[in-house]
Amino acid sequence: MKFTCNQSVLTKALNIVSKAVTSRTTIPILKGILLEVSNNGTLKMSASDLDITIEETIEVENAESGSIVVQSKLFGDIIRKLPNADVSVEQEEGNVIIKCMNSQFSIIGLSPDEFPNIKDIEENQGNIVFNKTILKEMIRKTSFAASIDESKGVITGILIELLADGINMVAIDGYRMAITREAMINKEEKNVIISAKIMNEISKILSDASEEDENVKLFMSDKKAIFMIGSVKVVLRLLDGEFIKYKDVLPKDNKIKVKVNKGDLMESIERASLLSKEGKNNLIKMSIKDTIVTITSKSEEGNVKEEVIISKEGEDLDIGFNAKYVLDVMKSIDDEEVYMYFNTPITPCLVEPIEGEAFEYLILPVRITNN
Amino acid sequence: MKFTCNQSVLTKALNIVSKAVTSRTTIPILKGILLEVSNNGTLKMSASDLDITIEETIEVENAESGSIVVQSKLFGDIIRKLPNADVSVEQEEGNVIIKCMNSQFSIIGLSPDEFPNIKDIEENQGNIVFNKTILKEMIRKTSFAASIDESKGVITGILIELLADGINMVAIDGYRMAITREAMINKEEKNVIISAKIMNEISKILSDASEEDENVKLFMSDKKAIFMIGSVKVVLRLLDGEFIKYKDVLPKDNKIKVKVNKGDLMESIERASLLSKEGKNNLIKMSIKDTIVTITSKSEEGNVKEEVIISKEGEDLDIGFNAKYVLDVMKSIDDEEVYMYFNTPITPCLVEPIEGEAFEYLILPVRITNN
Repeated sequence: MKFTCNQSVLTKALNIVSKAVTSRTTIPILKGILLEVSNNGTLKMSASDLDITIEETIEVENAESGSIVVQSKLFGDIIRKLPNADVSVEQEEGNVIIKCMNSQFSIIGLSPDEFPNIKDIEENQGNIVFNKTILKEMIRKTSFAASIDESKGVITGILIELLADGINMVAIDGYRMAITREAMINKEEKNVIISAKIMNEISKILSDASEEDENVKLFMSDKKAIFMIGSVKVVLRLLDGEFIKYKDVLPKDNKIKVKVNKGDLMESIERASLLSKEGKNNLIKMSIKDTIVTITSKSEEGNVKEEVIISKEGEDLDIGFNAKYVLDVMKSIDDEEVYMYFNTPITPCLVEPIEGEAFEYLILPVRITNN
Repeated sequence: MKFTCNQSVLTKALNIVSKAVTSRTTIPILKGILLEVSNNGTLKMSASDLDITIEETIEVENAESGSIVVQSKLFGDIIRKLPNADVSVEQEEGNVIIKCMNSQFSIIGLSPDEFPNIKDIEENQGNIVFNKTILKEMIRKTSFAASIDESKGVITGILIELLADGINMVAIDGYRMAITREAMINKEEKNVIISAKIMNEISKILSDASEEDENVKLFMSDKKAIFMIGSVKVVLRLLDGEFIKYKDVLPKDNKIKVKVNKGDLMESIERASLLSKEGKNNLIKMSIKDTIVTITSKSEEGNVKEEVIISKEGEDLDIGFNAKYVLDVMKSIDDEEVYMYFNTPITPCLVEPIEGEAFEYLILPVRITNN
């Protein structure tokens, strides 16, 4: 195995592929990157933690075919610190020799035979095309609402729902729910669930990937999905199981409708939560009355009262929330104003855009006692 | 106590004063900031961890004299998160009421009687004036070489040596030594030792302080020193004890003189240390031969050879170093080229500028075995 490649090209590709390398594994080969050179002048780099596999293929010079696994961290650090010049990489028995200007490294390689072989799925299955920016936004608006408790199965994932005329992404952790929608023509209707952690990795790759390609392709089978992002290919395992019937959770009745400036509300809740953090549940109380919502919180260190102007239809209401859950939702919204719907102090609050139906958020309240 | 002040003015002052607040104390009053308002319209804010006291005085409106201590973190977080508008602060019995637009906080205050009373020194003692940029640079070039082991007494400090025609700052931790020099006319010769940790705090305050004042004043007594940085006053305890007679440590004889490009040497050592980190002492070996220094290192993961072009007077030499110690020195030097002086594989290396005597660095070698 042998190739020559510019240092910055190699660094960029390694930065993407190494995202699939987990530091937490005890299996040495999973800390490695597989280098595969073919005589036609391409280098394919692959890394995998078994849940996600990332491959990138780049063009190289002086190619002699062969394959070897190198330690991701050491190889990456070496390449990153070399000067921006041609780097030659060559296998010499079990070692890999790296040369660049006045530098010469010899590092231990591992046999490619042990590297996990992630079989591709047929790429004509469930083929859909996303705009990169839209996909990134949909991930940002939902992933925070997925459970981070790895024992929780499907609710650690994001449900991707392909409908004939659109795509929905849904995440729910039992305390809040996030739904985003985009219009899209799909040939077939299909649902898959992908780990929110992996979707966040996809989002990072979308940021790092070349700006030439505006689109991302997604192929799906029953067990796996593949994202094709320019020259980068991400193969991932789907989460297995039945997603919560989220439409049943959405409240049918919305007696109280509040229109509020999102920025004003966020800033007031952020300040109020300075005194709620000390207490249980990060509790803030919202008193919705006429044209004002009064947000209060207290701890041993003191108390706070914030007022935000609203416009309201329906009755007055006192309701408690975990400040973090409300802030997470508001942070993910770009709109200047939103609608908040309420029913009773013990039923969830629904957050929706003023126009359209690009998102819906549901936040469970916290029971408040009157003292 | 009562005052009104713009939020951003208050935030800036709090950011500086709170640097003296330690989170590690078990004494609640030391987590506080003392607010002292006088009827002539000034607010003095003070914080102290007993080793260092920072005071800043700002002009305020609606001043009613009085004093109270507030919790630094909570008060600072509240002020920082308020909108950029007028903030009114008022004492109501044991509480402090903070109002700004639609926000109102009430937080618990502490009695100012318990706050440490750091007596000033007379400000006409040992008065010297620094240029801010020069002081920051001298701190940067020396503080890394002081010991971080708090049990080590004076070598955790920086020696400030006032001479009739200049100022020297010196730090030494037993493995390396840093000396910086600046020309300056001083009325009296005097030595003081100030904790390197505190000098780094001074450096941060110099960065944060208003850019109007180019100069910093330093007053010294036997036990204390005061830095006056614009409206900020820093009172600190001097370290007590005899500093190492550093001139005795400097090698008299320098048989081998090497001129090297600092950037090239740094980059090569950084790469070589990728393989030395795993081993003991972060060891790199430098083989100085004719016009080339060859830097090598090895570990279980592989080995590396780097070559850097030099010009040399004197014999060839093989010598070992802890890569970190050489890198720390090179990072603190701005010059493009430096002289490195050597004698034997077991005597320290001296680093000096090509011209002038603005700095001298001494680095102890690590004994190398021939295998």
